[in-house]
Amino acid sequence: MCKVAVIGYGVVGSGTVELFMKNRESISKKVGKECDIKYILDLRDFPDSPFADKMIKDFNIILNDAEVEVVAEVVGGTTFAYDYTKKLLEHGKSVVTSNKALVAEKGAELLKIAREHNCNYLFEASVGGGIPIIRPLNKCLAGNEILQISGILNGTTNFILTKMIKEQMSFDDALKMAQKLGYAEADPTADVEGEDACRKICILGSLAYGKHIYPEMVHCSGITKITLDDVEYAANAGYVIKLIGSVKKLDDGRVSAIVCPRLVPKSNLLASVDDVYNAISVTGDGVGDVMFYGQGAGKLPTASAVVGDIIDCLKHHHRVLALTWEDCDDKNFVAPYKDMDVSMYVRIKAENAEALKSSISEMFGKLMYIERSGRTENELAFITPNMKEADIDANLTILSHSAEIASKIRIY
Amino acid sequence: MCKVAVIGYGVVGSGTVELFMKNRESISKKVGKECDIKYILDLRDFPDSPFADKMIKDFNIILNDAEVEVVAEVVGGTTFAYDYTKKLLEHGKSVVTSNKALVAEKGAELLKIAREHNCNYLFEASVGGGIPIIRPLNKCLAGNEILQISGILNGTTNFILTKMIKEQMSFDDALKMAQKLGYAEADPTADVEGEDACRKICILGSLAYGKHIYPEMVHCSGITKITLDDVEYAANAGYVIKLIGSVKKLDDGRVSAIVCPRLVPKSNLLASVDDVYNAISVTGDGVGDVMFYGQGAGKLPTASAVVGDIIDCLKHHHRVLALTWEDCDDKNFVAPYKDMDVSMYVRIKAENAEALKSSISEMFGKLMYIERSGRTENELAFITPNMKEADIDANLTILSHSAEIASKIRIY
Repeated sequence: MCKVAVIGYGVVGSGTVELFMKNRESISKKVGKECDIKYILDLRDFPDSPFADKMIKDFNIILNDAEVEVVAEVVGGTTFAYDYTKKLLEHGKSVVTSNKALVAEKGAELLKIAREHNCNYLFEASVGGGIPIIRPLNKCLAGNEILQISGILNGTTNFILTKMIKEQMSFDDALKMAQKLGYAEADPTADVEGEDACRKICILGSLAYGKHIYPEMVHCSGITKITLDDVEYAANAGYVIKLIGSVKKLDDGRVSAIVCPRLVPKSNLLASVDDVYNAISVTGDGVGDVMFYGQGAGKLPTASAVVGDIIDCLKHHHRVLALTWEDCDDKNFVAPYKDMDVSMYVRIKAENAEALKSSISEMFGKLMYIERSGRTENELAFITPNMKEADIDANLTILSHSAEIASKIRIY
Repeated sequence: MCKVAVIGYGVVGSGTVELFMKNRESISKKVGKECDIKYILDLRDFPDSPFADKMIKDFNIILNDAEVEVVAEVVGGTTFAYDYTKKLLEHGKSVVTSNKALVAEKGAELLKIAREHNCNYLFEASVGGGIPIIRPLNKCLAGNEILQISGILNGTTNFILTKMIKEQMSFDDALKMAQKLGYAEADPTADVEGEDACRKICILGSLAYGKHIYPEMVHCSGITKITLDDVEYAANAGYVIKLIGSVKKLDDGRVSAIVCPRLVPKSNLLASVDDVYNAISVTGDGVGDVMFYGQGAGKLPTASAVVGDIIDCLKHHHRVLALTWEDCDDKNFVAPYKDMDVSMYVRIKAENAEALKSSISEMFGKLMYIERSGRTENELAFITPNMKEADIDANLTILSHSAEIASKIRIY
C-alpha cells in the first residue's frame, strides 16, 4: 500500500484529492500497488467533506508516519510551505508541489536536500498548471541544447489582454471582469505586475540552464500601463500584445531573462493563445520550436499535474529522478536586459508630433510608423529597428525633451 | 562508460548521431556517466563520414557486445527492424525507435519482450517527430482519464492542405511541390492516404487506453479527393480542412478511432497549425485540453526525440519504465465508425440542384447551406446536423438517385 498526504485543502488541494480519489483504481494500476490518500492537513474544519476522516491539523503526524511516502504541498506561500517541505525531504519523503513562489525562491536548496535524502522534489504543477512542461523539458528534450524558452505564463493577464484586444475593454474594466469570474484575486498585483510569470520563467530557466535564476535577477514589467491606443496601433501593424516571459542562452554562457508585455506578430501561434490559456514555446538545437498549450491554472488542471507527480514519486520511491539544478553564485549569470538587442514599439505625444519625424528618423535610422483611425498630428507611433535597448533608451531620453513618451513595448 | 549503437544511417540515423555527438558532454552529465556511440550499423559504405570508424555491417557485433546498453533502431520498416529489435530486447538491451510502422504493428509483443527481459522499448520519436507526446501522455497526464486525443499527425498532408487553403494550389500541384521540397516521398501513398497518421493514432490510443489498437481496426481515409471547391466552401463556413487522426473513449469501454480529413473551425487552434507542423490535442478529465505543437518530422527534430529516449534508457538501465500496453484480443474494441454521431459537410451536383433543397431538408432536418462565389444552380453544399453516420449515409444513398455526391467531409 502506498500512502500519500496532502497539505492544504484550498482550490488546488481539494482538486488534487478529488482527482486522485476519482481515478484511484487506474492510478494504483499504474503504480503497481494499491494507493491511497491517508491525510489531508488544513487548519480549517471541513466537517461536510467526504474526506473528513482524513483531515488532520498537526503536521507532525505526517512527518512521523513512516507509511507516508509522498506529500503534496499545495498550501502555497514561502513560510509554512518552506518549513514543511524541508522537514519532509529531510525525513526522506518525496514532496510534489504547485508552489511556484517556493520553487522560484528556494528550489536549489530544496532540490539539494532531496538529493541528499534520496527522495524527490517535483513541481510540474508550478508552471503552466496542467500543461506538461517540466518533464518534457527535462526528459524528452534532454538531447537538445535549449536555445530559448518563451511563453504566455499567466492566465489572468492573458484574459485581461484578450478582452482588451477582442472587445476593446479598458484595462480596469477587464480586470474587474476577471475578478468577478474568479480569474483574478482581490489584490491582483502578483499577476498584473508580472511577478507570477517571473517566478515561472525563473523555474524554466533554472531547469534548462542548470543554475538557479532568482526572481530578483529578472527584469519584470506588467500590463497595467497598456492602453487601448497601444492595442489599436499594434493591431494595425499586425501584432497583438501579450505578456511574455522569456529566457535565452547567450553565446558567452550567460542568459538573458525578462518578463514584459510584447507585440507578438499575428502569424505566431502565441498570438492565437487567448483567454486564461497559457502556452510555452521551447527552442532546442535539435527539435527546433515546440509549443505546449493548455489551461495554466484552475482546480483540476493544476491537480492533474500534482497527481502526475505523485504517481511518478510513488513509482520511484527512494530513487532520485535527476530533475535538478545547482545554486547560482554568479550575480552576473543573467545579463543586463538593457544590453540586449530589441525592436521597440514607441508611442509619443507632443504638440505637432508630426514635425518630430525627421529628428526621430535621424535617431533610429530606418523605422516604421503606424497609423490608426482618428490619429491627430499630436501623436506618433513607430517601431524602431533592432538595436541595443540602452541605445533606444538614450534616444528616447533625448526625444523626451520635446515629447511625452506615452508607451514603449518590446517586439517579440 | 555507457555505450550506444545506432542501426540505420539514413535521415533519422545520421541526425541521431549528429545530435548525440554534438551534445555528448551535456548528455553524459545528465546520465551521470561518460556516454558514447560505439557502433553505427548500415549496409551502405560511408567512407567520408566523420564517424567512419564506428560503421559496421554485422548486426551480431552489436547483439553480442555486452558493453552496448541501448540501441537506436532507426532503419524503419517491419522486417529487419522487427527481427533486430526482438533479438536485442531478448538480450536485455533497451531499444529506442522512430519506427511508427513497427510500433503500430508489433508494439504489444515487443513491449512484452522488453518487460520480460528487464529492459525498455521507447518510441517518443514515432509520433510527432520531436514533439514530446508519448512521455507527457504516459507520465504527466497519468492522473487523468484520457477522454480524447486528436491531432494533425502528418506533416506532408498538412503542407499540401496548407498550400491548397492559402494559395489555392490544386492537390496535384501541392503534392508536386511537397515532393520537390523533400516533404513527400516519390511514392506518397502512405502519407496522402492517411496510413502514416493512422499508425500514429494507433500508438497514442494504445498507450492511452492500455490495449493495442492495430491499424486494420481503424477506418482511414486520406486527402486525395479534396478539391479546391471544398476548400472554398469550408472557408466560407468558417472552417479549414485538415487531416485529423482521433481516438476517443466511449461510455461502454470501447473506443472510437478514425483518420480522415475534417472541417476544423477557424477558432480552434488546430486550424492555425500550418505547413509541415504537427499538433496533438489531448483531453483529460482533470487537465481539460492540452496541445503539443512542433515539427512532426525531419532529421534533427526526430533525432531530438530519439536521443531523449536514449538518455532515459541509459539513466534507467535494467529498470523498466512502465511505458506499456497489453495485446488486444477483443476485435470489437474499436467501435464501428458508422455508429458514431457526426456532422458532415456534403457537396452535391445535379441539374437544378436547388430544386432538391426541400427533399434534403426533409431528410436531415435543420441544416446549413453554404455559398460560394460563382456557385451555379447545379451545385449545393451543406452541413448536416449531428447524427449517426450510418443515417447520414442512408440519406445520401437516397439522394444519390437524383444527384452526384461530389464530396463528404466530417466536421471536427
